[in-house]
Amino acid sequence: MTPPDDTQQRHVCRSCGHIHYENPKIVCGCLIKSGDDILLCKRGIEPRKNLWTFPAGYLERFETTLEGAKRETREEVLAEVEIDRLYVQFDLSYISQIYQFYIAQLISPFAPGHETLDVQLFNENSIPWDELAFPVIRKSLEAYFSDTKRGEFKFRHFEIPDRTIWTRM
Amino acid sequence: MTPPDDTQQRHVCRSCGHIHYENPKIVCGCLIKSGDDILLCKRGIEPRKNLWTFPAGYLERFETTLEGAKRETREEVLAEVEIDRLYVQFDLSYISQIYQFYIAQLISPFAPGHETLDVQLFNENSIPWDELAFPVIRKSLEAYFSDTKRGEFKFRHFEIPDRTIWTRM
Repeated sequence: MTPPDDTQQRHVCRSCGHIHYENPKIVCGCLIKSGDDILLCKRGIEPRKNLWTFPAGYLERFETTLEGAKRETREEVLAEVEIDRLYVQFDLSYISQIYQFYIAQLISPFAPGHETLDVQLFNENSIPWDELAFPVIRKSLEAYFSDTKRGEFKFRHFEIPDRTIWTRM
Repeated sequence: MTPPDDTQQRHVCRSCGHIHYENPKIVCGCLIKSGDDILLCKRGIEPRKNLWTFPAGYLERFETTLEGAKRETREEVLAEVEIDRLYVQFDLSYISQIYQFYIAQLISPFAPGHETLDVQLFNENSIPWDELAFPVIRKSLEAYFSDTKRGEFKFRHFEIPDRTIWTRM
Protein backbone atom coordinates (compact mmCIF):
# COMPACT_ATOMS: atom_id res chain seq x y z
CA MET A 1 0.00 0.00 0.00
CA THR A 2 0.95 3.69 -0.30
CA PRO A 3 1.03 5.36 3.15
CA PRO A 4 -0.56 8.82 3.55
CA ASP A 5 1.76 11.66 2.39
CA ASP A 6 3.92 9.19 0.49
CA THR A 7 4.34 8.65 -3.23
CA GLN A 8 5.66 5.07 -3.20
CA GLN A 9 4.25 1.65 -2.42
CA ARG A 10 5.64 0.34 0.91
CA HIS A 11 5.44 -2.90 2.84
CA VAL A 12 3.18 -2.17 5.81
CA CYS A 13 2.70 -4.69 8.64
CA ARG A 14 -0.96 -5.82 8.76
CA SER A 15 -1.02 -6.19 12.51
CA CYS A 16 0.92 -3.16 13.82
CA GLY A 17 1.00 -0.77 10.83
CA HIS A 18 4.79 -0.46 10.91
CA ILE A 19 6.06 0.83 7.55
CA HIS A 20 9.00 -1.19 6.30
CA TYR A 21 11.04 1.15 4.07
CA GLU A 22 13.27 -0.70 1.66
CA ASN A 23 16.08 1.45 0.36
CA PRO A 24 19.00 0.82 -1.97
CA LYS A 25 21.96 -0.85 -0.31
CA ILE A 26 25.57 0.27 -0.39
CA VAL A 27 28.28 -2.28 -1.20
CA CYS A 28 31.79 -1.15 -0.30
CA GLY A 29 35.15 -2.79 -0.86
CA CYS A 30 38.80 -2.43 -1.75
CA LEU A 31 40.86 -2.60 -4.93
CA ILE A 32 44.04 -3.64 -3.10
CA LYS A 33 47.46 -3.04 -4.61
CA SER A 34 50.83 -4.45 -3.60
CA GLY A 35 53.57 -3.09 -5.84
CA ASP A 36 52.37 -3.71 -9.40
CA ASP A 37 50.02 -6.46 -8.25
CA ILE A 38 46.33 -6.48 -7.36
CA LEU A 39 44.85 -8.77 -4.71
CA LEU A 40 41.80 -10.81 -5.69
CA CYS A 41 39.85 -13.40 -3.74
CA LYS A 42 37.98 -16.43 -5.01
CA ARG A 43 34.38 -16.59 -3.76
CA GLY A 44 33.53 -19.59 -1.61
CA ILE A 45 29.78 -18.90 -1.58
CA GLU A 46 27.01 -18.35 -4.11
CA PRO A 47 26.32 -16.31 -6.12
CA ARG A 48 29.33 -16.57 -8.45
CA LYS A 49 31.14 -19.18 -6.35
CA ASN A 50 34.68 -20.00 -7.59
CA LEU A 51 35.02 -16.67 -9.39
CA TRP A 52 37.39 -13.83 -8.47
CA THR A 53 36.40 -10.55 -6.85
CA PHE A 54 37.53 -7.74 -4.55
CA PRO A 55 36.90 -8.02 -0.80
CA ALA A 56 33.54 -6.21 -0.60
CA GLY A 57 30.12 -6.41 1.01
CA TYR A 58 27.16 -4.52 2.41
CA LEU A 59 27.83 -1.40 4.44
CA GLU A 60 26.58 -1.94 7.99
CA ARG A 61 24.76 0.54 10.23
CA PHE A 62 26.99 3.11 11.96
CA GLU A 63 29.87 2.52 9.57
CA THR A 64 31.47 4.92 7.13
CA THR A 65 32.12 3.45 3.66
CA LEU A 66 35.85 3.50 4.44
CA GLU A 67 35.31 1.53 7.67
CA GLY A 68 33.07 -0.92 5.81
CA ALA A 69 35.66 -1.46 3.07
CA LYS A 70 38.35 -2.20 5.68
CA ARG A 71 36.06 -4.55 7.64
CA GLU A 72 35.18 -6.56 4.54
CA THR A 73 38.90 -6.84 3.76
CA ARG A 74 39.57 -8.19 7.25
CA GLU A 75 36.70 -10.68 6.99
CA GLU A 76 37.33 -11.99 3.47
CA VAL A 77 41.12 -11.96 3.05
CA LEU A 78 42.27 -11.55 6.69
CA ALA A 79 44.38 -8.56 5.69
CA GLU A 80 44.99 -4.98 6.76
CA VAL A 81 45.13 -2.14 4.25
CA GLU A 82 45.86 1.55 4.18
CA ILE A 83 43.17 3.39 2.24
CA ASP A 84 44.44 5.60 -0.54
CA ARG A 85 41.23 7.09 -1.98
CA LEU A 86 37.59 6.50 -2.92
CA TYR A 87 38.04 5.53 -6.55
CA VAL A 88 34.88 4.38 -8.26
CA GLN A 89 31.10 4.30 -7.82
CA PHE A 90 28.58 2.21 -9.74
CA ASP A 91 24.86 2.95 -9.40
CA LEU A 92 23.28 -0.42 -10.23
CA SER A 93 19.72 0.80 -9.98
CA TYR A 94 18.29 -2.35 -11.61
CA ILE A 95 19.22 -4.24 -8.43
CA SER A 96 19.03 -1.22 -6.06
CA GLN A 97 22.73 -1.38 -5.16
CA ILE A 98 25.32 1.39 -5.03
CA TYR A 99 28.92 0.13 -5.18
CA GLN A 100 31.89 2.09 -3.87
CA PHE A 101 35.44 0.77 -4.19
CA TYR A 102 38.50 2.30 -2.55
CA ILE A 103 42.06 2.01 -3.80
CA ALA A 104 44.04 0.60 -0.87
CA GLN A 105 47.59 -0.50 -0.14
CA LEU A 106 48.24 -3.98 1.30
CA ILE A 107 50.20 -3.69 4.57
CA SER A 108 49.94 -7.20 6.04
CA PRO A 109 49.98 -10.90 5.12
CA PHE A 110 46.72 -12.31 3.77
CA ALA A 111 44.80 -15.59 3.80
CA PRO A 112 41.31 -16.80 2.86
CA GLY A 113 38.49 -15.91 5.28
CA HIS A 114 35.69 -18.41 5.88
CA GLU A 115 33.66 -17.39 2.79
CA THR A 116 36.76 -17.30 0.56
CA LEU A 117 38.45 -20.22 -1.23
CA ASP A 118 41.70 -18.57 -2.29
CA VAL A 119 43.51 -15.22 -2.26
CA GLN A 120 46.20 -14.32 -4.77
CA LEU A 121 48.15 -11.39 -6.16
CA PHE A 122 47.91 -10.83 -9.91
CA ASN A 123 49.49 -8.40 -12.33
CA GLU A 124 47.59 -6.95 -15.29
CA ASN A 125 48.50 -9.91 -17.51
CA SER A 126 47.89 -12.69 -15.02
CA ILE A 127 44.47 -11.44 -13.86
CA PRO A 128 41.84 -14.12 -14.63
CA TRP A 129 39.83 -11.75 -16.84
CA ASP A 130 37.43 -14.53 -17.88
CA GLU A 131 36.81 -15.67 -14.32
CA LEU A 132 35.85 -12.40 -12.63
CA ALA A 133 32.70 -12.63 -10.52
CA PHE A 134 30.98 -9.37 -11.50
CA PRO A 135 31.13 -6.71 -14.24
CA VAL A 136 31.88 -4.01 -11.61
CA ILE A 137 35.16 -5.84 -10.90
CA ARG A 138 36.19 -5.99 -14.56
CA LYS A 139 35.27 -2.34 -15.15
CA SER A 140 37.12 -1.18 -12.01
CA LEU A 141 40.26 -3.10 -12.99
CA GLU A 142 40.16 -1.74 -16.55
CA ALA A 143 39.82 1.80 -15.20
CA TYR A 144 42.64 1.22 -12.71
CA PHE A 145 45.16 -0.07 -15.25
CA SER A 146 44.20 2.69 -17.68
CA ASP A 147 44.68 5.33 -14.97
CA THR A 148 47.95 3.69 -13.87
CA LYS A 149 49.34 4.24 -17.38
CA ARG A 150 48.14 7.86 -17.40
CA GLY A 151 49.43 8.40 -13.85
CA GLU A 152 46.20 10.07 -12.70
CA PHE A 153 43.39 8.59 -10.59
CA LYS A 154 40.24 10.67 -10.77
CA PHE A 155 37.08 9.55 -8.98
CA ARG A 156 34.85 7.77 -11.51
CA HIS A 157 31.09 7.42 -11.39
CA PHE A 158 29.11 5.02 -13.57
CA GLU A 159 25.32 4.95 -13.84
CA ILE A 160 24.12 1.44 -14.73
CA PRO A 161 20.31 1.63 -14.87
CA ASP A 162 20.02 -1.56 -16.93
CA ARG A 163 22.08 -4.75 -16.90
CA THR A 164 22.35 -4.82 -20.70
CA ILE A 165 24.64 -1.76 -20.45
CA TRP A 166 27.45 -4.08 -19.33
CA THR A 167 27.60 -5.75 -22.72
CA ARG A 168 28.40 -2.36 -24.29
CA MET A 169 31.08 -1.27 -21.77
CA MET B 1 19.40 -11.76 17.92
CA THR B 2 22.36 -12.70 15.74
CA PRO B 3 21.32 -15.07 12.92
CA PRO B 4 23.53 -18.12 12.17
CA ASP B 5 26.53 -17.26 9.95
CA ASP B 6 26.11 -13.57 10.73
CA THR B 7 28.23 -11.25 12.85
CA GLN B 8 25.64 -8.56 13.60
CA GLN B 9 22.49 -8.29 15.69
CA ARG B 10 19.39 -8.18 13.42
CA HIS B 11 15.69 -7.67 13.96
CA VAL B 12 14.10 -11.08 13.43
CA CYS B 13 10.31 -11.55 13.30
CA ARG B 14 9.17 -13.72 16.23
CA SER B 15 6.41 -15.39 14.26
CA CYS B 16 7.89 -16.04 10.80
CA GLY B 17 11.65 -15.74 11.34
CA HIS B 18 12.07 -13.12 8.62
CA ILE B 19 15.34 -11.25 9.12
CA HIS B 20 14.87 -7.50 8.77
CA TYR B 21 18.23 -6.06 7.61
CA GLU B 22 18.61 -2.39 8.37
CA ASN B 23 21.26 -0.74 6.27
CA PRO B 24 22.53 2.80 5.95
CA LYS B 25 20.40 5.06 3.79
CA ILE B 26 21.53 7.24 0.92
CA VAL B 27 20.38 10.86 0.75
CA CYS B 28 20.85 12.51 -2.64
CA GLY B 29 20.25 16.04 -3.78
CA CYS B 30 21.37 19.02 -5.85
CA LEU B 31 23.48 22.09 -5.29
CA ILE B 32 21.72 24.12 -8.00
CA LYS B 33 23.40 27.06 -9.65
CA SER B 34 21.93 29.78 -11.83
CA GLY B 35 24.61 32.20 -12.99
CA ASP B 36 26.44 33.25 -9.82
CA ASP B 37 23.47 32.31 -7.66
CA ILE B 38 22.59 29.16 -5.72
CA LEU B 39 19.03 27.94 -5.23
CA LEU B 40 17.96 27.11 -1.68
CA CYS B 41 14.59 26.00 -0.34
CA LYS B 42 13.05 26.65 3.08
CA ARG B 43 11.86 23.49 4.80
CA GLY B 44 8.13 23.31 5.51
CA ILE B 45 8.36 20.18 7.67
CA GLU B 46 10.27 19.02 10.73
CA PRO B 47 13.09 18.47 11.43
CA ARG B 48 14.65 21.90 10.89
CA LYS B 49 11.43 23.52 9.69
CA ASN B 50 11.89 27.12 8.43
CA LEU B 51 15.59 26.60 7.71
CA TRP B 52 17.26 26.57 4.30
CA THR B 53 18.55 23.52 2.49
CA PHE B 54 19.18 21.92 -0.92
CA PRO B 55 16.43 19.86 -2.58
CA ALA B 56 17.41 16.39 -1.28
CA GLY B 57 15.96 13.20 0.15
CA TYR B 58 16.22 9.44 0.43
CA LEU B 59 17.23 7.49 -2.66
CA GLU B 60 14.37 5.17 -3.64
CA ARG B 61 14.61 1.60 -4.91
CA PHE B 62 15.53 1.20 -8.58
CA GLU B 63 16.89 4.74 -8.82
CA THR B 64 20.41 5.91 -9.57
CA THR B 65 21.65 8.70 -7.30
CA LEU B 66 21.42 11.08 -10.27
CA GLU B 67 17.78 10.14 -10.88
CA GLY B 68 17.05 10.53 -7.16
CA ALA B 69 18.65 13.97 -7.04
CA LYS B 70 16.55 15.13 -10.01
CA ARG B 71 13.34 13.65 -8.56
CA GLU B 72 13.85 15.41 -5.23
CA THR B 73 14.42 18.66 -7.12
CA ARG B 74 11.13 18.22 -8.99
CA GLU B 75 9.27 17.40 -5.76
CA GLU B 76 10.68 20.12 -3.52
CA VAL B 77 11.24 23.10 -5.80
CA LEU B 78 9.19 22.09 -8.91
CA ALA B 79 12.24 22.66 -11.11
CA GLU B 80 14.23 20.90 -13.79
CA VAL B 81 18.02 20.80 -13.72
CA GLU B 82 20.87 19.58 -15.87
CA ILE B 83 23.34 17.58 -13.80
CA ASP B 84 26.92 18.75 -14.03
CA ARG B 85 28.76 16.31 -11.73
CA LEU B 86 28.69 14.33 -8.49
CA TYR B 87 30.41 16.81 -6.21
CA VAL B 88 30.47 15.80 -2.56
CA GLN B 89 29.86 12.82 -0.28
CA PHE B 90 29.41 12.86 3.49
CA ASP B 91 29.47 9.57 5.43
CA LEU B 92 27.41 10.42 8.53
CA SER B 93 27.90 7.06 10.17
CA TYR B 94 26.56 8.27 13.54
CA ILE B 95 23.10 8.40 11.93
CA SER B 96 23.76 5.71 9.26
CA GLN B 97 23.28 8.13 6.36
CA ILE B 98 25.44 8.64 3.28
CA TYR B 99 24.86 12.02 1.55
CA GLN B 100 25.65 12.66 -2.10
CA PHE B 101 25.12 16.08 -3.66
CA TYR B 102 25.38 16.87 -7.37
CA ILE B 103 26.24 20.23 -8.88
CA ALA B 104 23.39 21.04 -11.26
CA GLN B 105 22.33 23.86 -13.54
CA LEU B 106 18.83 25.37 -13.21
CA ILE B 107 17.02 25.17 -16.57
CA SER B 108 13.41 25.99 -15.64
CA PRO B 109 11.28 28.22 -13.42
CA PHE B 110 10.90 27.11 -9.81
CA ALA B 111 8.30 27.25 -7.03
CA PRO B 112 7.78 25.68 -3.59
CA GLY B 113 6.65 22.04 -3.54
CA HIS B 114 4.19 20.89 -0.88
CA GLU B 115 6.86 20.32 1.81
CA THR B 116 8.64 23.60 1.02
CA LEU B 117 7.76 27.10 2.30
CA ASP B 118 9.91 29.20 -0.02
CA VAL B 119 12.52 28.92 -2.77
CA GLN B 120 15.05 31.64 -3.52
CA LEU B 121 18.28 32.32 -5.36
CA PHE B 122 21.17 33.61 -3.24
CA ASN B 123 24.70 34.74 -4.00
CA GLU B 124 27.61 33.99 -1.68
CA ASN B 125 26.96 37.12 0.39
CA SER B 126 23.20 36.86 0.63
CA ILE B 127 23.10 33.17 1.64
CA PRO B 128 21.43 32.87 5.07
CA TRP B 129 24.53 31.24 6.62
CA ASP B 130 22.98 31.29 10.11
CA GLU B 131 19.71 29.74 8.95
CA LEU B 132 20.96 26.66 7.09
CA ALA B 133 19.18 23.44 8.06
CA PHE B 134 22.14 21.04 8.26
CA PRO B 135 25.94 21.14 8.54
CA VAL B 136 26.25 19.17 5.26
CA ILE B 137 24.65 22.18 3.51
CA ARG B 138 27.04 24.70 5.04
CA LYS B 139 30.08 22.53 4.31
CA SER B 140 29.00 21.89 0.70
CA LEU B 141 28.44 25.61 0.07
CA GLU B 142 31.81 26.52 1.61
CA ALA B 143 33.52 23.93 -0.61
CA TYR B 144 31.63 25.16 -3.66
CA PHE B 145 32.52 28.83 -3.25
CA SER B 146 36.12 27.92 -2.45
CA ASP B 147 36.34 25.75 -5.60
CA THR B 148 34.62 28.47 -7.65
CA LYS B 149 37.45 30.86 -6.75
CA ARG B 150 40.09 28.22 -7.64
CA GLY B 151 38.21 27.27 -10.82
CA GLU B 152 38.47 23.51 -10.10
CA PHE B 153 35.75 21.19 -8.81
CA LYS B 154 37.19 17.90 -7.56
CA PHE B 155 34.94 15.27 -5.98
CA ARG B 156 35.15 15.65 -2.21
CA HIS B 157 34.54 12.95 0.38
CA PHE B 158 34.07 13.66 4.08
CA GLU B 159 33.94 11.00 6.79
CA ILE B 160 31.85 12.23 9.74
CA PRO B 161 31.81 9.37 12.26
CA ASP B 162 30.80 11.62 15.15
CA ARG B 163 28.56 14.69 15.23
CA THR B 164 31.04 16.69 17.30
CA ILE B 165 33.31 16.81 14.22
CA TRP B 166 31.03 19.49 12.77
CA THR B 167 32.06 21.97 15.45
CA ARG B 168 35.68 21.65 14.26
CA MET B 169 35.01 21.98 10.51
